[in-house]
Amino acid sequence: MAAARPARARALLQQSVSARLQVRPPERGAEAQWVEIQRGLVIYICFFKDADEDLVPKIVNMLLNVKLSENENGEFVSVLDLPGDVLIIPQATLGGKPKGRKMQYHANIEKEKGLELYSQFVTLCEKELAANSKCMEAGVHVKHGTYGNRQVLKLDTNGPYTHLIEF
Amino acid sequence: MAAARPARARALLQQSVSARLQVRPPERGAEAQWVEIQRGLVIYICFFKDADEDLVPKIVNMLLNVKLSENENGEFVSVLDLPGDVLIIPQATLGGKPKGRKMQYHANIEKEKGLELYSQFVTLCEKELAANSKCMEAGVHVKHGTYGNRQVLKLDTNGPYTHLIEF
Repeated sequence: MAAARPARARALLQQSVSARLQVRPPERGAEAQWVEIQRGLVIYICFFKDADEDLVPKIVNMLLNVKLSENENGEFVSVLDLPGDVLIIPQATLGGKPKGRKMQYHANIEKEKGLELYSQFVTLCEKELAANSKCMEAGVHVKHGTYGNRQVLKLDTNGPYTHLIEF
Repeated sequence: MAAARPARARALLQQSVSARLQVRPPERGAEAQWVEIQRGLVIYICFFKDADEDLVPKIVNMLLNVKLSENENGEFVSVLDLPGDVLIIPQATLGGKPKGRKMQYHANIEKEKGLELYSQFVTLCEKELAANSKCMEAGVHVKHGTYGNRQVLKLDTNGPYTHLIEF
């Protein structure tokens, strides 16, 4: 048996009835800013050191097409076919590994490169939804968190139906 | 390099400000029943085929003692030291692996054995919190979902701060 290749990215998927994510914390008397989605998919994404630009389209293709969203008939379809909203949350903590009683993040990508891949990931998700006629007709949205922020999240599910996919 | 041993269990941790989980769906005119926690830890747990009873105390020990909960001073401490509530959610979908555009669950433990380990896991978490004087003084709670149910969840976070730990 060959040794498993270390993952280059890790995505966590949860199903949303509605979700609200802070994209700017409150400061200097200004209220916090939030984005919101309704029914659809919450994607938590974390890149590891070996991730590169070529990987991004593969991840987007998988996550938008994997059949994990329940439609009115109880069938599982892709978020594109639902069609549903998408909320993207950068989540570096997903790359952690326990050592003793602490988590270490040695395998995580460095911050600048991570931001670059995250931005590409968001842009490509937006593009894919915009290119999908079902999504456009239904007026579904892609929303996303601010890389590097604390991801203050309120999530309402009909079953989080949590899946992990590594790349 | 040796081939990685397949995981026997997978736990996903998210931090809660408050969380509400349905433990009985509405039926025959009776309203749904929910459990609720306040600040603390949400544990999604999934057992794979090779999991056994010896593994349960190891998982409980790790999850209750790993320092992932933020206290008032911004330090990360264990949920026992916070002290915080614990919400346990059985989440078989976490064991899925993509094949084409569908997820497969071939590595998951069989249902009966999974229920047995899940029950032991819940009981041991309850015992550990009950044995901890800080937790007892603060009156924190362990709540848990019903194995096999749809886990209808509402989660309010100050940052889900999502971690994956495999055993």
